[in-house]
Order: sequence, then C-alpha cells, then structure tokens
Amino acid sequence: MALTLGIVGGGQLARMMIAPAVELGVRVRVLAEEEGMSAALAATAVGDYRDLDTVRAFARDVDVVTFDHEHVPQDVLRALVADGIRVHPGPDALQFAQDKLAMRARLAELGMPQPEWAAVTDAAELQSFLDANGGRVVVKTPRGGYDGKGVRVVSDPAEVADWFDAGALLAEELVDFSRELAQQVARRPSGELRAYPVVETVQRGGVCAEVVAPAPHGGARLTEVAASIGTSIAEGLGVNGMLAVELFETTDERLLVNELAMRPHNSGHWSQDGAVTGQFEQHVRAVLDLPLGDPAPRQPWAVMVNILGGPETDSLESRFPAVLAAHPAVKVHTYGKAPRPGRKVGHVNAFGDEVDAVVYEARAAAAFFAD
Amino acid sequence: MALTLGIVGGGQLARMMIAPAVELGVRVRVLAEEEGMSAALAATAVGDYRDLDTVRAFARDVDVVTFDHEHVPQDVLRALVADGIRVHPGPDALQFAQDKLAMRARLAELGMPQPEWAAVTDAAELQSFLDANGGRVVVKTPRGGYDGKGVRVVSDPAEVADWFDAGALLAEELVDFSRELAQQVARRPSGELRAYPVVETVQRGGVCAEVVAPAPHGGARLTEVAASIGTSIAEGLGVNGMLAVELFETTDERLLVNELAMRPHNSGHWSQDGAVTGQFEQHVRAVLDLPLGDPAPRQPWAVMVNILGGPETDSLESRFPAVLAAHPAVKVHTYGKAPRPGRKVGHVNAFGDEVDAVVYEARAAAAFFAD
Repeated sequence: MALTLGIVGGGQLARMMIAPAVELGVRVRVLAEEEGMSAALAATAVGDYRDLDTVRAFARDVDVVTFDHEHVPQDVLRALVADGIRVHPGPDALQFAQDKLAMRARLAELGMPQPEWAAVTDAAELQSFLDANGGRVVVKTPRGGYDGKGVRVVSDPAEVADWFDAGALLAEELVDFSRELAQQVARRPSGELRAYPVVETVQRGGVCAEVVAPAPHGGARLTEVAASIGTSIAEGLGVNGMLAVELFETTDERLLVNELAMRPHNSGHWSQDGAVTGQFEQHVRAVLDLPLGDPAPRQPWAVMVNILGGPETDSLESRFPAVLAAHPAVKVHTYGKAPRPGRKVGHVNAFGDEVDAVVYEARAAAAFFAD
Repeated sequence: MALTLGIVGGGQLARMMIAPAVELGVRVRVLAEEEGMSAALAATAVGDYRDLDTVRAFARDVDVVTFDHEHVPQDVLRALVADGIRVHPGPDALQFAQDKLAMRARLAELGMPQPEWAAVTDAAELQSFLDANGGRVVVKTPRGGYDGKGVRVVSDPAEVADWFDAGALLAEELVDFSRELAQQVARRPSGELRAYPVVETVQRGGVCAEVVAPAPHGGARLTEVAASIGTSIAEGLGVNGMLAVELFETTDERLLVNELAMRPHNSGHWSQDGAVTGQFEQHVRAVLDLPLGDPAPRQPWAVMVNILGGPETDSLESRFPAVLAAHPAVKVHTYGKAPRPGRKVGHVNAFGDEVDAVVYEARAAAAFFAD
C-alpha cells in the first residue's frame, strides 16, 4: 500500500510537496482552507484547520499529518496525538514556532546565541528595555506574525500601545547585522539529521526577496557554526521535518538566531533545483520517517528570486513565452495564485559556476514577471 | 488564467508529467482508462479513449490535448482537430507511430538510415525476404506492438502463420548491432527543436532495463549523427512534443532507426534528475508551444535502471527505508502500480562523475526492489 501524507493547509508550501511526493510514490492529501488554493490538485477536503472534528476526519485516512503552516492550534494538535495519529512536527515542537516568547526562552535554555530580548507587559517595561538597548528596539507580537507583520521598530512605547492589551510582547535588541542568513536542517523521528548549506537571504519590506546558496564569503567556520546552531535547535526542540533558522550575521561576525520556521521555508526554495534532495522531498521523507536524502548542492551556486506581486493587469502565464525563451536554463515556479501587489506568487531558480552570473540570471528572469 | 494541459491516458508517463507541470504552474487534467491508475491524482475523467464523445467531452476544458500513449484512433484524433482543438502530437505525426509499415515507408522517403525491410502479405513474400537476408529476420505486426510484443525473430514463414490474417506484416533485416541507442528530440508547433544527448539503452526480454546518458564511447561524431537523425525525423514527420528514436549501432558503426515513440520515453527517464530540463517538463512545454528548456546534462554521467516487477510478496514502499538509507543521492521513482512480474513499476536515477560508479550505484539501488 502506498504511503499517504496528509498536509493541513493548501498554500504553496503544500503545493510544492506534491511534486516530490508523486515522484517518489507517496500519496498526498491536503486539507485546504478553501477551494482553488495553490495545492488544490491534492485537496481531498476543504475546511477550518482550527476545528478539531474537521482535522480529525481528515487525519483518519493518512499515515502522517504535516503542515503548510504553523497555525494549527495546540489543542487540535494534542487531540490528534492522543488519538494515536502521527503528527510531524508535533505540538511540543510547534509551540516554539507559534509563540516567539516561548521560543526565546527555550533557545536561551539551550544556550543558543540570540539578540538581547525581554518579555514586556507594559510601557514601563518596554521603556526599561529601550533604555538598556540604545533607545531603539524591535517589538514583536508573540503570535500570528509573519512576513513583517506583527513586527515594529520603535523608540517610544507609545508606538505599540495598541498591542499591549493582547498580553506580553517580545522586545528585541535592534541587531547591527551585516547580512541575514538561513540555516535549514531536516530531522526525522528516528533521530537522523541532515544540514543544508547555510544561505544568504535578502529581505525587502520584511519579505524574502532573494537567496544565494551557499552564503557567499562563508568559509568552513560559518558553515560549521550555522549547521551546529541548526542541528542543536532541531534536536533541542524535537523538530521533525524541515526546520529553518533565520540568522543575523553581525558586523562583528557573530550569528544570532532571529526566527524559526518548522516547515519548508522560502530560504530553501533554491534546493528544489539546486540540491540533490530538495527541501520539499526532504520534508516528505522526514515526516514519514524515511531515511533522509543528500542535501548537497548540485553546482557551485544557486540563486532563488521571488516573484512578488506579479503583473498587475495580466496573468503570470502571459510572461512564460518571453521568460522561457530568454532563460532556457532557469527553472520557473508559480503557485497557481492570482497576482496581487506584494503577494508571493512564484519564484525562479538559477544555478551555475559564477555567483555573479547566477544572481544576474535569476534577477533577469524574475523581472519578466514584474510590470 | 492558468494554462491547462489535458492528457489522454492515465499511465506512468502521464503521472510523470504532473510534477513538472505543477512546478511550472500548468494545470493538468487526465482522462484515465480506469480508477486508481498511475496518474490518478490528476484524473478528472475516466473513460474509453477510443470513444469520440468521451474524448471530446474531456478535451473541451483544456488548452491542449496530449497523450500517455499512441493508441488513440486516427478518427478520434482527426475529429478533435476538426473541432479546433490543439492536439500534440497530431494525427498526421501519430499515424507513423501507430503503423510501423507507414513509418518505414516515410523514413525511406526522408532518406533515414534503416534496416532492410519489406511489407510481406504472405508466406511466399516472407520467404523471399528471408532468402535475401540471411535466412533469419525480424517480423513485426504493424500495429499494437510494444515492449517486445508483436515482434518475432523467424527463420520460417510458418512461425508467423497466425499473423498473416490481419494483413501485411513488416519484415526487417536482423541487424548485427553492437548496442542500442536512443535519441530524443523535443519540437514545438512554432518549430523550435532541442536535441538531448544520445544515450545507450540496454534491453532485456524486449523491455528497457538500463540507460546510460550520454552513450559511453560516443564522441562528437556519434552525438552529431544521432541528433541529426532525430531532428530530421521530428521535422519530417511533424512531431510536436517529445520524440524518441530507438537506434541500432551496427558493428560497422552505422546508426539504423529501429523504432519511434512520440511521447516521453523510458530512454529519457534519466533526464528527470539528470538534465537541466527533464523530458516530462520538456514535453509539457513543447505541446503548449512554450519555449523549450535546456536539455543539457547536469553532470558527466546519469544512469537509469528500471524497477521491473518489484517485490513478489511485498509493496514497493516496504523497500524505501533500506534503499533510501543506502543511497541518499539516488532518486527513486515509483508509479503507484502494484508489483507484478515483469511490470514496469518504477525506476531509479543516479548521477556522478565516473560512469562505472554511477552504473554500479543505480543497479545496487534498483536491486533493493527485487525479491
């Protein structure tokens, strides 16, 4: 009997698990939020992932439940586990992706390098943190933030006055970083771990815009330190599946943990075409507790550039003839989503021997989808 | 609006178009012969591909119709074209894949190198051909043969007496070949052509068992001659989509055309993981008349080994843990088919710098699926 993977959530991360699952011979079922989503091809159910009965009914016919996102509530996750259903990543791990205060506290216990941080519950506490950290800091809502949402840089507690009603906030030192990096690690329930090469990520407006793999000017020390942070967190938090650790590289060459994601991650899209085992195949293997694949790059450099927004008055497909003709070696990925300003609707992957040429090619290809 | 590709036939070739179509952002619909076939994930209809109403209803909602096999009858194909539906490859090309006598006659007109051949309608004509060709020849039914079916090596007309009732047979010289090769070419309606590197194929019992890409001991001349034969046939027959030309390399170093396939082909499965643009992605692009991708290999050597039959008392998936643990860099593909002696149920692709090591690795990985 074929293995059956159940994915809660019908977005592009679920969609991009479909191809490697089909290739390997794993059946995919998706519980989508609505009709016509990115992963509609494999959607066997449509419903609310916050409703236990809906998720329970979906989970009944699959071997393992995994996720397109980290938003399934703890009580739903724990009920599934109590039912005897295999859920990866599990609730014990996911709580640290769902609550940034819990994440900071647990990483501190694990001795991971982090920005200075504090839980602040009112203006006075935030003012103390501001005073101790140069008068300008980052404030985050512990829950629900992503892609720049729920994050503000403030120099006065009044700038987040509207947020205090919901409970404690996370205040973080405004790190003086030279660049952002991301480390991905795959872990499976049996304990096997595989670290991808650390990559450089370029964010624009709080959204990932480009990734260069591996991180340029890295060297063995950076590779080793980043991989060690990634594997320590995967083990320390008990993450099964793909883990992404977003890192700051400081101007004095330290690495500090910025954010975690317990799922395939935008920083790893390069690996679909650029690694022996792409992150989506690796996630499928990991959550099914199958032996992990080789995460090695297939060429010296790979570059991913996101398609953000897409053409304003046109479909993405209308640009295929021009981009494919101009870039026969670039891999174009689109997510079946309608273009809308700022929306992640696809990405391109390029690879080759010279980093500058690969960056140029990926950017040039992605530019065909802008207006 | 997303482009929509309609595939007639639900076998593994249709299945393997799904992944690259999803990646690119092309919607796939499949008309399957029955429930639960390899391409079931994308099956939106189940019915008889010989029935015009069934195929016509299926074709109504897609941008282009293509095929998992070459068996859709000419009258059905021509009715679709008359309806204004884009059908690739079209009936004018497919007739030469459906009728081996027509194929031989047309290749002769094109000046393609072929074995000696004749249409024989009775025992006397076959005896004349036997007398002229060393007393031992190949006889084929013009229609319906594949994977060794409809092919006999005979030294006496009596050995195909049961076949003469159905009409003329194709008699071919028994070629003294040193090895078998395959040349794949992609062509799209706008006329663009892309040739893959010629590969060596190893057949066992009339079924493709292994492929080495590119063909070892080839050199520029072989590459060029094979590509030239492939492109001449693609253009001469007006094939849109993937064309595979099976070739004999004779002991005196000539290339002779053995068979044609107008679809993705077992000899090209290596390209899924081994080429910048795999044959299934290329076929999707070609039939949609999108610019073709780069067919260049991504590493010096790629080797495909078929999984034939599979475990007798067990599922394919039961072997995943062992094979994936032993071969983290091999790509395993299975087709969602139940194991059965001799049945093509999957394949593995390996790649690397040393041909012997890659052959060894692919064979060792495939062996995990044998009993």
